[in-house]
Amino acid sequence: MDTITIPTAADMHIHLRQGSLMNMVTPYVAEGGVSICYVMPNLQPTVSTTEQALAYKAELEALAPKVTFYMSLYLGPSLTPEEIRKAAKAGVRGVKSYPRGVTTNSESGIESYDIYYPVFKAMEEEGMVLNLHGEIPSDHEKNVCVMNAEEKFLGHLKQIHTDFPKLKIILEHATTEAAVNMVKSLGDTVGCTITVHHLQLVVDDWAGKCHNFCKPVAKFPSDRAALRKVIKEGHPRFFLGTDSAPHPSHKKEGPEACAGVFTTPLVLPYLATILESFDALDQLRGFACDFGRAFYEVKDEKWVGEVKLVRTNKDFNTPETYAFGGEGVDGESGKVVPFMAGKALAWKIASIN
Amino acid sequence: MDTITIPTAADMHIHLRQGSLMNMVTPYVAEGGVSICYVMPNLQPTVSTTEQALAYKAELEALAPKVTFYMSLYLGPSLTPEEIRKAAKAGVRGVKSYPRGVTTNSESGIESYDIYYPVFKAMEEEGMVLNLHGEIPSDHEKNVCVMNAEEKFLGHLKQIHTDFPKLKIILEHATTEAAVNMVKSLGDTVGCTITVHHLQLVVDDWAGKCHNFCKPVAKFPSDRAALRKVIKEGHPRFFLGTDSAPHPSHKKEGPEACAGVFTTPLVLPYLATILESFDALDQLRGFACDFGRAFYEVKDEKWVGEVKLVRTNKDFNTPETYAFGGEGVDGESGKVVPFMAGKALAWKIASIN
Repeated sequence: MDTITIPTAADMHIHLRQGSLMNMVTPYVAEGGVSICYVMPNLQPTVSTTEQALAYKAELEALAPKVTFYMSLYLGPSLTPEEIRKAAKAGVRGVKSYPRGVTTNSESGIESYDIYYPVFKAMEEEGMVLNLHGEIPSDHEKNVCVMNAEEKFLGHLKQIHTDFPKLKIILEHATTEAAVNMVKSLGDTVGCTITVHHLQLVVDDWAGKCHNFCKPVAKFPSDRAALRKVIKEGHPRFFLGTDSAPHPSHKKEGPEACAGVFTTPLVLPYLATILESFDALDQLRGFACDFGRAFYEVKDEKWVGEVKLVRTNKDFNTPETYAFGGEGVDGESGKVVPFMAGKALAWKIASIN
Repeated sequence: MDTITIPTAADMHIHLRQGSLMNMVTPYVAEGGVSICYVMPNLQPTVSTTEQALAYKAELEALAPKVTFYMSLYLGPSLTPEEIRKAAKAGVRGVKSYPRGVTTNSESGIESYDIYYPVFKAMEEEGMVLNLHGEIPSDHEKNVCVMNAEEKFLGHLKQIHTDFPKLKIILEHATTEAAVNMVKSLGDTVGCTITVHHLQLVVDDWAGKCHNFCKPVAKFPSDRAALRKVIKEGHPRFFLGTDSAPHPSHKKEGPEACAGVFTTPLVLPYLATILESFDALDQLRGFACDFGRAFYEVKDEKWVGEVKLVRTNKDFNTPETYAFGGEGVDGESGKVVPFMAGKALAWKIASIN
């Protein structure tokens, strides 16, 4: 098989940033073969109100008019059931929960879910989605660290699902066999996103390699195998959410690297290449296009195109960097090193119509 | 207690490098409170013959005349039982085994131990020490990665000890509870070095932090707890081997960081500070001075001094960098970022006499 034709994809977890970086990244959403994406709210300040979400959405739409942006709010003490109802009416699709301090701009993240039960109740009634960053903060006295923070979180997922069985919940960017097993064991209201890079990386790949460092960190080969297996099975509650998270290279290469892998400009070429490597190319459409839309019950998409992917002769390489910024805007500038920078990909996009 | 007086320490695992970097690092051995050290042979080319070891030793002695340097050879196919006997007569103390490709300059490391049994036999007869870098190479098909490479190596240690019960073997730079338990379970000819940094770091500390990235990587908090516990117990077969491994900062801060943590200039201040943090300061002398010398049966030390450590008012900080090179020698130059750069230490060396 040398060509693949599928609908434009749905990336149900993306970071589009602000300012100069947003200006560079956002137009690449469509170039990567994606026509709908679910946008994360961890800006500075966080997107915590309906007004902020709509203002951010307008900025994104100006940069990528054909793309449908599903917006989210940041879960925090200021978020009320009233705000949930207002947001739902305005088309905001969900609420993202970050445990405190585990990733970029999560300093105002949550510590306990109990106080949010009135918010969850309103979300359940309004049909909004709860997006969980599924890690508990490291606690070395209790043997919690980045390698087991996701597994130790899963009890929270189960508890919230038990208490709100009709609330749609997504365990975001799963990285472990334990997470796959937990999501499978729960009801149909529980979904799970999987990134492009976690299908490719294991712990070895970020040991000393800052551009592959992300949160949650990639885990054991057996964990990666479980992520691959659930995709091969075509399980409809596991779907694409890239967690593409660009950082300027000067914030990656240094004593302390920011967490995040940038995949937006080449989402489908990466994914076709990686899925083929484990004999799952036939699941590309389900995983990248259909299952995410079905879970979110997407009915209002502005535009869905047709993407034609063609096999390369391994003569198509990922760029080494993407430049951003310069004159104007916020004065920020630099370059972003993408996932698999400079590496050959087995597939590329020939056309999007 | 505000002062500690102990003999100069024994660092039974150190990388002193070559050229400009060697010239900078070697004089710091004594400044860190160490008067005898066991020198690793992973140079370019590797130290594989008696002549190379003696030539390297002469270079080191010229830079640090008071320090006793115990030299080692690099285990590889060219090493013969005859060379072992020659090396033993010349005072070379041991042989270091690196699994292929797991750390700096290990490309010519071993893949299987069987072919080295004639060498081990000669070493056993000559009283030479076998130093094992105890990791197997990553193999993702078999779920081997940097997080379990040490645990999966331990069967090799047990097998070699079973086959050569009188051969002194050291499992170098142990990082796991499994390693501690294995070494404890074996006979008195099996020792184990522990680094300064593995008493302080866990996986979280090298996730995105290149200066804490080393091989073996720091593991789970429960593993660190096991290393601390065996020191608190005063177990005489567990002793200091810093694995201090300087790299220029431009080889740490970039897309691919070299593996290694630099501790040589401040070995005893670091160790006193860290041991005190887990209530084991009373084990400083045994762990850092006595047990290593006893295991190696040191009788020929040039000089043993007396180190006086004093408590700081947290006004003593680790330098941010150590510069090396410049004019002359090999043209190399740069700076090395030490462990805990810029951080306050609770103890410092007041005098060495």
